Amino acid sequence: MQRPPSDADWMAATIALARRGRSASAPNPNVGCMIVKDGRVVARGWTRPGGRPHAEAVALAAAGDAARGATAYVSLEPCAHASPRGPCCTDLLVAAGIARVVIATRDPDPRTDGAGIARLGAAGIEVETGLLEADARTAMAPWWTRQGEWRPFVTLKLATSLDGCIAMADGSSRWITGERARAHGHLERAGHQAILVGRGTLAADAPTLDVRLPGLEDRSPKRLVLTSGSAPVGWTAVASPAAVEGVDSLLVEGGAGAASAFLAADRVDRLLLYRAPILIGGGKPALGDIGLADLADAHGRWRLADTRLLGSDRLDVYERIRII
Amino acid sequence: MQRPPSDADWMAATIALARRGRSASAPNPNVGCMIVKDGRVVARGWTRPGGRPHAEAVALAAAGDAARGATAYVSLEPCAHASPRGPCCTDLLVAAGIARVVIATRDPDPRTDGAGIARLGAAGIEVETGLLEADARTAMAPWWTRQGEWRPFVTLKLATSLDGCIAMADGSSRWITGERARAHGHLERAGHQAILVGRGTLAADAPTLDVRLPGLEDRSPKRLVLTSGSAPVGWTAVASPAAVEGVDSLLVEGGAGAASAFLAADRVDRLLLYRAPILIGGGKPALGDIGLADLADAHGRWRLADTRLLGSDRLDVYERIRII
Ligand SMILES: NC(=O)c1ccc[n+]([C@@H]2O[C@H](COP(=O)([O-])OP(=O)(O)OC[C@H]3O[C@@H](n4cnc5c(N)ncnc54)[C@H](OP(=O)(O)O)[C@@H]3O)[C@@H](O)[C@H]2O)c1
Ligand SMILES: NC(=O)c1ccc[n+]([C@@H]2O[C@H](COP(=O)([O-])OP(=O)(O)OC[C@H]3O[C@@H](n4cnc5c(N)ncnc54)[C@H](OP(=O)(O)O)[C@@H]3O)[C@@H](O)[C@H]2O)c1
Repeated sequence: MQRPPSDADWMAATIALARRGRSASAPNPNVGCMIVKDGRVVARGWTRPGGRPHAEAVALAAAGDAARGATAYVSLEPCAHASPRGPCCTDLLVAAGIARVVIATRDPDPRTDGAGIARLGAAGIEVETGLLEADARTAMAPWWTRQGEWRPFVTLKLATSLDGCIAMADGSSRWITGERARAHGHLERAGHQAILVGRGTLAADAPTLDVRLPGLEDRSPKRLVLTSGSAPVGWTAVASPAAVEGVDSLLVEGGAGAASAFLAADRVDRLLLYRAPILIGGGKPALGDIGLADLADAHGRWRLADTRLLGSDRLDVYERIRII
Repeated sequence: MQRPPSDADWMAATIALARRGRSASAPNPNVGCMIVKDGRVVARGWTRPGGRPHAEAVALAAAGDAARGATAYVSLEPCAHASPRGPCCTDLLVAAGIARVVIATRDPDPRTDGAGIARLGAAGIEVETGLLEADARTAMAPWWTRQGEWRPFVTLKLATSLDGCIAMADGSSRWITGERARAHGHLERAGHQAILVGRGTLAADAPTLDVRLPGLEDRSPKRLVLTSGSAPVGWTAVASPAAVEGVDSLLVEGGAGAASAFLAADRVDRLLLYRAPILIGGGKPALGDIGLADLADAHGRWRLADTRLLGSDRLDVYERIRII
């Protein structure tokens, strides 16, 4: 016989649901909710595009009467503030007769932070908090970085050879990766509000940073250039990694100087590494100094989130292991 | 209904058999043989450890009478020279009543080269040659490099960070990869006759190059150092990549200078890239100049042969795409 699922198993599944809303739930957090009774899933929900309905509302509507006496697993503390856009989730959980709520992480939004937990408890619901907290925060990292740290969620994209070069010694970098990898890069552009390159790359490659995919041409994001100087027409100058403003999601497309500056400032949340099956040798390294003092400190910071072959190139996606 | 297998399908399966003998068949080539009749596999064989019996002898013995009128797929031209160690395979095929022989590649051994094909034809057997030739040669690359080019089969091993560094700027490289990757590296050592490092690595890391795996300690290979100078006790000095002698299989374990020298001399057949999920930034690049003049020339040289996760490190194995 298999052992029955534990709270941690249910929560892991709930966090996987939360990920489904990841890019679409803005401006709200992407949350997952699973209603479980007698060891069986009664209903599931995740935040809908645009942020409403919330995950709990979706799951409770699907559960109906079956929610009575059940356990609700939620990746984020249920909201405690009424909004013109919908009811507050703590009230919904209480009204549905939920007996127990397991929460991965508290909501940093000051209108809820702890208040949701308190209201559930006051209504006689058993509440547990902190299960798989780091995983839940990572699952909603784009929202979390904005909410908790007031900075954009930053993805660093690099296309390298097997020996880690982003260009030949003379600066030529067309092309390292193949068509399918480049098309994937264009798709990533479409998912970001802004794209940034260093002034060196702007001068060397004059990239347009367009989204060159049929049907997505109009999704081309804002174009930023990292420079201590000024920006040409059509571009916005950014004086430092900390100075990116009014942007929720940023794609940094290199070069080595810009990439290193963002890493040194600890502002990178996600790495997109496209690696071509070629050796360059003595080329331009992907990174300059990022302030690493000791090899041991380099470990435990990045977790492989996805890997795939794009033609003969490999894409590895790493997510920052956040200790928040 | 599925389409029936083509000659190319049978040959691909035959080459897969050939790979099974790859490290054990020395000094003989690792060959695969498949006997097919009426669209069904009658028997299979591959070269046994130590090189005898040959693949054809194994398959014919298993087929018995069923070989009469059948087609034999062989990855290498059947030998035409009698040896004190066993009968010649062309004679065995004729005696068994094989009707048709499909061969991937001719045998560069001057005692056979073309003679096997001629003898089969003279006996009235239908013969086809050249099917999946490059694949067959790659499958027996260690033997082929020695036989065709009289040089060892060279594997280059590198352990790098995601940004392609093999050490910090100060030279420290302990540890980039984790325990499981290092244990895998020790297993690779056990499979090679000799290991080579550059003089810089010998001076910096004083590696023992032992096989530190239970039960395999006595498999530690010969230790070579690439240097224009002399070698310390227990080591053999090698003055250039072309000067490696009396060795069939060589594992080059770095550093950057030695790796680049072997690549620049076009002496590397296989790459073992262990990649840790860390960023170093401004570290020691994996390679120096390897004589690449144009980015376009870097493509089409390496094919991913295997990939796996070893703990949180990734191993990618690339094989040279040989144009022979
Ligand atoms: N394979 C790839 O993925 C890829 C992608 C992009 C580029 N590339 C290649 O990379 C090369 C260019 O890289 P690169 O390193 O020379 O240049 P870069 O990173 O594009 O730009 C460097 C510039 O960024 C600005 N900068 C850096 N750190 C800063 C900070 N902390 N605050 C403010 N500004 C900062 C500086 O501009 P100012 O001097 O104006 O202050 C600096 O000169 C080219 O060969 C290009 O082809 C490859
Ligand atoms: N992460 C890894 O996988 C890994 C593996 C090994 C080493 N490492 C690191 O790599 C660094 C050492 O690398 P390195 O590049 O400085 O040194 P190296 O490659 O180990 O040795 C360079 C030396 O090799 C000899 N050499 C190079 N090309 C030659 C040629 N064509 N003919 C004859 N001799 C030749 C020269 O020796 P002479 O000067 O005596 O002529 C040269 O000084 C260390 O920091 C080490 O920790 C990392």
